[in-house]
Amino acid sequence: MVYLDNASTTYPKPEKVYAETDRCFREYCANPGRGAHAMSRTAAQGVAETRAALARFFNFDPPERIVFTKNATEALNVAIKGSLHQGDHVIATMLEHNSVVRPLKQLEKERGIEITFLKGNAHGEVAPSAVAAHIRSNTRLIVCTLSSNTNGIIMPIAEIGAIAHRHGISFLVDGSQGAGSVDLDCKAMKITLLAFPGHKGLLGPQGTGGLCVSAGIELSSLLQGGTGSESENPYQPHAFPEALESGTLNTPGIIGLGAGIEFIRRRGRQNIEDHKQRLIAYLHEALAAQPKIRIYSRSDSGKNSGILAINIGGVPSLSVSRILDERYEIATRAGLHCAPFAHEVLGYTVERGILRLSVSCFNTLDEMDYAVHALREITERSTGKRRTLRKQTCMDMVCTA
Amino acid sequence: MVYLDNASTTYPKPEKVYAETDRCFREYCANPGRGAHAMSRTAAQGVAETRAALARFFNFDPPERIVFTKNATEALNVAIKGSLHQGDHVIATMLEHNSVVRPLKQLEKERGIEITFLKGNAHGEVAPSAVAAHIRSNTRLIVCTLSSNTNGIIMPIAEIGAIAHRHGISFLVDGSQGAGSVDLDCKAMKITLLAFPGHKGLLGPQGTGGLCVSAGIELSSLLQGGTGSESENPYQPHAFPEALESGTLNTPGIIGLGAGIEFIRRRGRQNIEDHKQRLIAYLHEALAAQPKIRIYSRSDSGKNSGILAINIGGVPSLSVSRILDERYEIATRAGLHCAPFAHEVLGYTVERGILRLSVSCFNTLDEMDYAVHALREITERSTGKRRTLRKQTCMDMVCTA
Repeated sequence: MVYLDNASTTYPKPEKVYAETDRCFREYCANPGRGAHAMSRTAAQGVAETRAALARFFNFDPPERIVFTKNATEALNVAIKGSLHQGDHVIATMLEHNSVVRPLKQLEKERGIEITFLKGNAHGEVAPSAVAAHIRSNTRLIVCTLSSNTNGIIMPIAEIGAIAHRHGISFLVDGSQGAGSVDLDCKAMKITLLAFPGHKGLLGPQGTGGLCVSAGIELSSLLQGGTGSESENPYQPHAFPEALESGTLNTPGIIGLGAGIEFIRRRGRQNIEDHKQRLIAYLHEALAAQPKIRIYSRSDSGKNSGILAINIGGVPSLSVSRILDERYEIATRAGLHCAPFAHEVLGYTVERGILRLSVSCFNTLDEMDYAVHALREITERSTGKRRTLRKQTCMDMVCTA
Repeated sequence: MVYLDNASTTYPKPEKVYAETDRCFREYCANPGRGAHAMSRTAAQGVAETRAALARFFNFDPPERIVFTKNATEALNVAIKGSLHQGDHVIATMLEHNSVVRPLKQLEKERGIEITFLKGNAHGEVAPSAVAAHIRSNTRLIVCTLSSNTNGIIMPIAEIGAIAHRHGISFLVDGSQGAGSVDLDCKAMKITLLAFPGHKGLLGPQGTGGLCVSAGIELSSLLQGGTGSESENPYQPHAFPEALESGTLNTPGIIGLGAGIEFIRRRGRQNIEDHKQRLIAYLHEALAAQPKIRIYSRSDSGKNSGILAINIGGVPSLSVSRILDERYEIATRAGLHCAPFAHEVLGYTVERGILRLSVSCFNTLDEMDYAVHALREITERSTGKRRTLRKQTCMDMVCTA
């Protein structure tokens, strides 16, 4: 099987990630920080080490202000709902994922916040000057994805951060696509809130993620509960990380995430970025020669986090993804990718969706060759007629029911 | 090491739980329901199987109305905040955990809800008649812990459920302590909302939990985000389980949870309950003979989910827990156990806290003997003078920083 769905979750993980997750689970998986005994302290120590590793990796401090969440979605909800109040204005981009769009639209209804979604250029890349031009007196937050989960375009984070900093506005970056390979330096880029998943570019397990909350940023908690501290207090404590970490943490997951970061550190983040860049450039060049294939991604250095978004003529992306899966054992993703406004920017249709091929540090050029071969065959066989699968649309499938 | 901190998290887990979690992680840990490819479908199928197993185990349907959360705390927050609005009244007990107390106190501030905390008898057991007596015209929710996490007392869930049902009031049960061994039948007990952790009595991994939401119960979502469905919709979908499941699930954790439930099914829930009951009764009888030891738990059948709460004279519980850990390698927990009102009910003090010994299906009578031996030695050596550890209180320690 050739796995090209790394933008959903990376697979495989480094061997150490599997091994350390399992070792924690089997050997010392007590409740961290909630017991006076040795095993609980070992678990707490492991959690603290991952927190410290994340702080170093993102050039953020203090580590205690990194809170663990179950995924990036929870982190984004905490950041957005904790920041915005009645009458506030927020600037975001049209390439944001539903994990940003839906909380914002919810607050628009609940708290009457005002939202500006910036369209950007043909690839959805937003100009820093456009961000600056839309700042109002009531702008409280700028939200920007590090990289689009639809076409991989990398946003000018440092430039937008400088603008936010100059205006004294909170800057929330959704690192879901790119964290782990694309450079993310909270201090240099003036990022005040960084949401990240553990199970994508950071090569950790699902069920992990987090939020870096810069000193001075006050966030109300979304969840209240047991924190292992101030037990006698019937209100949520204010100290970090407990203020935003209620209930039992995913200890083995967090330990696994620590192993993922350690793997990246050893291999070199820049090396991983360069490797993914080479794979995408290779795919791009090979597929650009096919007149029926439309490409929605850039491939030049520093502009892509590892995703090639394409369509073959008018064929629904889900049909292509199905054929890749069934005939070639290539795992990709089709549909709208939970980014409802992306199709308005990139020019594909809701009906057709988009086919996404996404790479990790473990993919090879041979695999790219095989994917190119498969896509060429599918392209040659496609009649140009619009295919429809019975009772299927290009919407992301619901497979959980 | 003798592990008697199972009320925090059970340890060890059945071998199958470790093995299936690891197998999923290594072999098919794609993003469930978010891809058109085979590995994604396998992951989604595994998640659906755990959902179905939980539905059978709790006699709840349809399975799709069981939503996965990161822990019971998240489930309780979703249930409480999704249910209660401005001016509503809620009844709870004084033995509730901070995962119930803190969300309620937060809503008291934010939405002006009214809360009645029922005290119950000397063990904190609440009489169904007391619940009935406190129902008002604006009572929207009754919240009750299945069993106290402090002293293990099992609440009369079926009787309270019948009262809630008769009055048409939602009934939320916090199954954190007991789910997995104590009988929980949503239909028979008229439970409309059941919150549960995966990592305690259900023998699954940390990072898992869930909420059963009966048909007809409308809950607003606490998190919005990608659901893999209705991607074009910038608002959260209403269909279950997606309505309350945003972002990537903890797939390997959920698979491990399924293995935990399967273990319980094979061994027999009642057998596990009986085994824990025997261990607690044995401990209780042996320690009751010690005049310096005060016991806060009942040990008669059907009244204890597997916890013995004690104190030795005026000695701070944390001191005893430390000695048990360092001198005897017995893992216990001390402090207030995140249940701020419990000490008012049970008669211990905030300063001293309480020592909690909690068992699982893997503990043995030999281990109880060893714990009794250790506690007797500690009791004999205690001078009766109040010991205080330097700079330590009985509050739960914060070890994460």
